[in-house]
Amino acid sequence: MKNIEYFFNPRSIAVIGASREETKPGYIILKNIVENKRREIFKGEIYPINPYAKKILGLHSYPSILNVSGDIDLAIIVIPAKTVPKIMEECGKKDVKATIIISAGFSEIGNVELEDRVLKIAKKYGVRIIGPNCLGIFSPYNGIDTFFLPIFKDLKSGGSRLAAPRPDKGFVSFISQSGAFGTAALDYMWGEKIGIRYFISYGNRIDVDEADLLEYLGEDEYTRTIMIYVEGIESGRKFMRIARRVSIKKPIIALKSGRTRAGARAAVSHTAAMAGKDEIYEAAFKQCGVIRAYSMRDFFIYAKALVYQPPAKGNRVAIITDGGGAGVMTTDACEINGLNVVKIGGESRKKLKDLMDKKILPEFAVIDNPIDLTGSASTEMYVETFKIMLGDRNIDSIIILALHHVPGIKYLDEFVKSIVEANEKYNVDRKPVISVDIGGSPAANYVREEFDKHFIPSYSSPEDGVMAIKALYLFGKYLRKRRVYGKYVRRWKPLV
Amino acid sequence: MKNIEYFFNPRSIAVIGASREETKPGYIILKNIVENKRREIFKGEIYPINPYAKKILGLHSYPSILNVSGDIDLAIIVIPAKTVPKIMEECGKKDVKATIIISAGFSEIGNVELEDRVLKIAKKYGVRIIGPNCLGIFSPYNGIDTFFLPIFKDLKSGGSRLAAPRPDKGFVSFISQSGAFGTAALDYMWGEKIGIRYFISYGNRIDVDEADLLEYLGEDEYTRTIMIYVEGIESGRKFMRIARRVSIKKPIIALKSGRTRAGARAAVSHTAAMAGKDEIYEAAFKQCGVIRAYSMRDFFIYAKALVYQPPAKGNRVAIITDGGGAGVMTTDACEINGLNVVKIGGESRKKLKDLMDKKILPEFAVIDNPIDLTGSASTEMYVETFKIMLGDRNIDSIIILALHHVPGIKYLDEFVKSIVEANEKYNVDRKPVISVDIGGSPAANYVREEFDKHFIPSYSSPEDGVMAIKALYLFGKYLRKRRVYGKYVRRWKPLV
Repeated sequence: MKNIEYFFNPRSIAVIGASREETKPGYIILKNIVENKRREIFKGEIYPINPYAKKILGLHSYPSILNVSGDIDLAIIVIPAKTVPKIMEECGKKDVKATIIISAGFSEIGNVELEDRVLKIAKKYGVRIIGPNCLGIFSPYNGIDTFFLPIFKDLKSGGSRLAAPRPDKGFVSFISQSGAFGTAALDYMWGEKIGIRYFISYGNRIDVDEADLLEYLGEDEYTRTIMIYVEGIESGRKFMRIARRVSIKKPIIALKSGRTRAGARAAVSHTAAMAGKDEIYEAAFKQCGVIRAYSMRDFFIYAKALVYQPPAKGNRVAIITDGGGAGVMTTDACEINGLNVVKIGGESRKKLKDLMDKKILPEFAVIDNPIDLTGSASTEMYVETFKIMLGDRNIDSIIILALHHVPGIKYLDEFVKSIVEANEKYNVDRKPVISVDIGGSPAANYVREEFDKHFIPSYSSPEDGVMAIKALYLFGKYLRKRRVYGKYVRRWKPLV
Repeated sequence: MKNIEYFFNPRSIAVIGASREETKPGYIILKNIVENKRREIFKGEIYPINPYAKKILGLHSYPSILNVSGDIDLAIIVIPAKTVPKIMEECGKKDVKATIIISAGFSEIGNVELEDRVLKIAKKYGVRIIGPNCLGIFSPYNGIDTFFLPIFKDLKSGGSRLAAPRPDKGFVSFISQSGAFGTAALDYMWGEKIGIRYFISYGNRIDVDEADLLEYLGEDEYTRTIMIYVEGIESGRKFMRIARRVSIKKPIIALKSGRTRAGARAAVSHTAAMAGKDEIYEAAFKQCGVIRAYSMRDFFIYAKALVYQPPAKGNRVAIITDGGGAGVMTTDACEINGLNVVKIGGESRKKLKDLMDKKILPEFAVIDNPIDLTGSASTEMYVETFKIMLGDRNIDSIIILALHHVPGIKYLDEFVKSIVEANEKYNVDRKPVISVDIGGSPAANYVREEFDKHFIPSYSSPEDGVMAIKALYLFGKYLRKRRVYGKYVRRWKPLV
């Protein structure tokens, strides 16, 4: 992990290839960081490097990093590929610790020799590299932001639209082999309000690879879940060794594409990934506890679940609903995904019957599983039923499948608050809880956002909710296999 | 189909059980229709029936329908279950053609005898029934709206949120066995901007069943796609006979839940559906050309695709993208779903190479399939490549996988317009085209909405886009099996 820290916590940054032209990456990147310094997110020194400019964005511009008197921890390199070896030589002489080479034009278009030369120089001086041909790093914590795609897009008919937003602070770190998917993922996470700790697009990874990053993030206290998008992993053994160590500390989720023959062919064109047989990846991920997602949507469903909720002890799910049809769909999805919608028995059944006798639940409520409170459901009914399920030792996780439309959910805010408070007070066993509401109305969005704000992850379809529970179940199952489930859950702290 | 027409085009409506209490279904339903009359969507007569009121919502209220002098085509019944037989007798005497019994309290809670009595009376007089225990009908075309769940929901902290919105006019008709899921589906479709022709929640279906509705909608010219949510179909043979006739005229999509053992058990509690072995449904749907969705999300993905686009001739897909990683994911999803991401060969390959020679495409573009225009992609590159794929006889459908983030997509509106225009001008073979953009930013939403407005259905993840193509492929395959594909496509008219 030598010097990796400098990528993430540099005291000083040089932007080599800083530009005054507003559409150029060398301008956008410098501006991102200058702006973050102004907002006191980035607190270090910034050195624009450009021999043809005296000042850029109000900062003194240096002809070369060798002219900078202070130390440089991190250099961001945004110059034509062919001049990178010369610049890397200067970085070495200046004792720069870490470099992010944004520039493209290396092995991805056949210039292997040039890439090798850059690496050799870096190794000579002990300079670390992320890239080349990458988007680099974004973090809302420290203000590093080397993503250079236009933040706004224009309409020819006038006006513009926010096009490449940055998520807020959060607890997910994301490692992406693909830059374009990285940008799209940030956009998606912004929309889903999933916060970010570190986002790294590592491109051709001639030096720092996914395993190195995994190791670093494994030690990072604010990273609670790690997402990895890859098409092929080069150093498989190293990756597995590190993943196995990290995966008992925090969940790792991988979206590995190039699964099919045609997909693998496309991956070769894209990242020259020698994808290898998919079964090998499948087995390797399983062995080292990496939870694999098989679609983009599941990837993010898993992440939100795993960052907000503790792992599940087993596969027994309770579904509490006011929508019979949605309950049936949820049950189907559970069964298909290896989750068990167990019958409600013993003590819990008695307690529920008791609620019926006391007219707290309607006489026609179904106290099987799914527990169907029917269209007569009220906030109180949800809370009372939820409490019983939290206390049931035969239940490992709970889905609150509350369609907000029923008249008895009178106040939307009160409903969410009541569930959240009951969870805080009565969830002594740390059972995972997730919520589902269906619809695109302001009310549906409100309910989901409020649950998310209180870290009960919310989803917009029965099957999505079930995939969330599946992730929590798979992670718990892995921890049990490693015999650390109990310890993990005892140490697990809810987000607040 | 005797008298079914009166449910959908009544010249006069009686609301039996009309109420002055604002939270009561009898008030909400009357208000919906009165409001729709004011907006000139419903054009017929409205008769509130309530013996204890003189006027409701400004209308004269009648003690009984027998006191109404004009004819009554449709009666909406919102009174306690036990009084329904008496009211049905009156409906018979008054020669009411059709009734929607909203009231619950029949076979779903064990009152089978009461339900039988109501049906017997209706049969005697030839009155048709939708329901009981249902939400009835909603149509933005004719103003029928018997959905009575609160349209706004309050917050205890103040303010309120739109909670049960109604979609705009459109070309999808939806038949739902579940009322709660029906409401949720309307909410979802409103959010996705999928327009509605008729929405029918039919509840206990003692008379009019899903097959009758299917038959009616099969003849309805504005219904271009039929969605059916069911847990169990009672009259299987009748359903299959009718579905087989309708399915060569327009696509039918079914979400049949209760697929698994636990799901089937839940369905019995919910709608008393004797679900039967899922394989039987699977085979029956296949035989009569009903396209089956296996999740809520796919259900709506399929609907949007099938209502906007023609069926695909075969399974050969072209993917045009600027995001290599997303291209790989899309390819994987295609292969897994029986779609073939064929190599681009012959004439098309030559044309694409030619574009590279002319520097219209970048030299490092990948002209395999997916065609990766890379981060240097521009609107022009997309259009030129799209035109070639439209003309390629080895391609049956096209995915425009354009991540809007690249700088070369300069104007968002111009980009969409260019693709739409090229499609209108060059898509002589009526190949289905869909689009994918990833992200929750205003720019991503704008691009997707604009594509949708022009009936190129848009999706927010690679896998969702592939499911859309899958639906178009499955429908085309079925039409070929029935030997009507050519005829269907020649007669198919794009929405404008």
